[in-house]
Amino acid sequence: MTAEFTYHRRIQFAETDLAGVLHFSNYFRLMEETECAFWRSIGVPVYASDGDRIISWPRVATSCEYAAPARFEDELELVLTLEKIGERSVTHQVEVRRDNRRLALIKTTIVCCAMEHGRFSSVSIPAATRAKLEPYVRTDTENQKAKSS
Amino acid sequence: MTAEFTYHRRIQFAETDLAGVLHFSNYFRLMEETECAFWRSIGVPVYASDGDRIISWPRVATSCEYAAPARFEDELELVLTLEKIGERSVTHQVEVRRDNRRLALIKTTIVCCAMEHGRFSSVSIPAATRAKLEPYVRTDTENQKAKSS
Amino acid sequence: MTAEFTYHRRIQFAETDLAGVLHFSNYFRLMEETECAFWRSIGVPVYASDGDRIISWPRVATSCEYAAPARFEDELELVLTLEKIGERSVTHQVEVRRDNRRLALIKTTIVCCAMEHGRFSSVSIPAATRAKLEPYVRTDTENQKAKSS
Amino acid sequence: MTAEFTYHRRIQFAETDLAGVLHFSNYFRLMEETECAFWRSIGVPVYASDGDRIISWPRVATSCEYAAPARFEDELELVLTLEKIGERSVTHQVEVRRDNRRLALIKTTIVCCAMEHGRFSSVSIPAATRAKLEPYVRTDTENQKAKSS
Repeated sequence: MTAEFTYHRRIQFAETDLAGVLHFSNYFRLMEETECAFWRSIGVPVYASDGDRIISWPRVATSCEYAAPARFEDELELVLTLEKIGERSVTHQVEVRRDNRRLALIKTTIVCCAMEHGRFSSVSIPAATRAKLEPYVRTDTENQKAKSS
Repeated sequence: MTAEFTYHRRIQFAETDLAGVLHFSNYFRLMEETECAFWRSIGVPVYASDGDRIISWPRVATSCEYAAPARFEDELELVLTLEKIGERSVTHQVEVRRDNRRLALIKTTIVCCAMEHGRFSSVSIPAATRAKLEPYVRTDTENQKAKSS
Repeated sequence: MTAEFTYHRRIQFAETDLAGVLHFSNYFRLMEETECAFWRSIGVPVYASDGDRIISWPRVATSCEYAAPARFEDELELVLTLEKIGERSVTHQVEVRRDNRRLALIKTTIVCCAMEHGRFSSVSIPAATRAKLEPYVRTDTENQKAKSS
Repeated sequence: MTAEFTYHRRIQFAETDLAGVLHFSNYFRLMEETECAFWRSIGVPVYASDGDRIISWPRVATSCEYAAPARFEDELELVLTLEKIGERSVTHQVEVRRDNRRLALIKTTIVCCAMEHGRFSSVSIPAATRAKLEPYVRTDTENQKAKSS
């Protein structure tokens, strides 16, 4: 069975907008927080120097589907799984829930990169990192179910 | 020929992150700025009271594909067109460029809603608004070309 | 002895800037989070409707002195006390610490207001709220010591 | 007569909060934007590499007094002058206005620093930079008047 990583977060005043709800761009910040907490939990830094190089994971694609608004002081549950792992990329999925109801579904694809002199280039995901990520990869059946729900 | 709306914006210090680039979540804020400037230009408010109701356009979906990083003080050109208009929804596309190079392609779908007592419900796009939006809708041929480029 | 309210918060990636540190404006967001957590802890909402009125506490003044930078993933301790309570205003002080070292000292003065039809006007702090705040008010001696340290 | 630098900026949707006004922390971002535009106008970069060193200007103190709220789509005028220049520090003052009415008064003190290996240390302001800043320094009379107004 696929492992899940769960993160809890309360909505702050500064994150709302004049419509009285969590601003749509802030879902991506919640997602990044969840992602960073997940990577910490498996012991892989998302931004680290490795001698002269910085190993980082810039995003190549993000998306969010919004189902219902979140409000000030809401306590959200963010559940992270991995949609897939490629040779150099990882696609996260974060479901945002309040009281077991889905508010949003966020996806983001990041690419393993080495940064030297301010420039990024993609590299293969190290085997040790891949081994730590694999328990969280959703099966095809689970991905199919998520789409149709 | 499809009309385009162009907006210019310089990247601010607070919008960067420790990787030295525009934080990925801030592309959505740039998109929203461009969108609001576009709606102002056609004379349709994005958030307005209409008697007891607030007419607003919450987002149901957003996505961004990142091609190259933007940096502090970069002057970006944001070019807005509409991918489609539905009965109750509008899908914007914003291409983020620097020196004619695409840095990112952002899409967002908003739904025409009436808000009463803090709750939204979707309504048909008023005919007058639809007429102002139509010149900016991309043709099928243009959408096809955008995908393959 | 003056009561203190302590809040813990980890620095997120999106909160850093290209200098590699917590952006200076984000200290005010940390302060607001701490403040909201404090008000929740004493059972007084910072933004609540009271019949037709909204009772809220807009800021009239804020300040921050920065002693040392905070960085990505730092775990900060934010310690809130009250510098003073006036007839209609409250002045919070939040000390930001990492490993018992002061990184910043933030002050903010908020005023008890009633908002009707989108306009604020100041009102006296309700006696029940005042009673809950009083244990956290610093003595003159403590305020004096804070200045000279 | 003291020179002033004026910057114009429209309030964006994402900068508002559920009270329907510009969030108090965002005044500091407006101030930084104004400051950066000012430094660009006099030809001095606020963040630049000088051989192995980064010359930057971290903040040591900020403050803001709020007089009246700003709202979505407001066009603000931000007027920058310098309160004083020290051996290593500069204190900016930015008045935020809408229709000639003061909404806020922001002050910030920055220190000229060299950053090597991720650590800052303060250095004297270069003479060429000082010469470009001096026309914007307020006289004692002006500072006195600002306090009493």
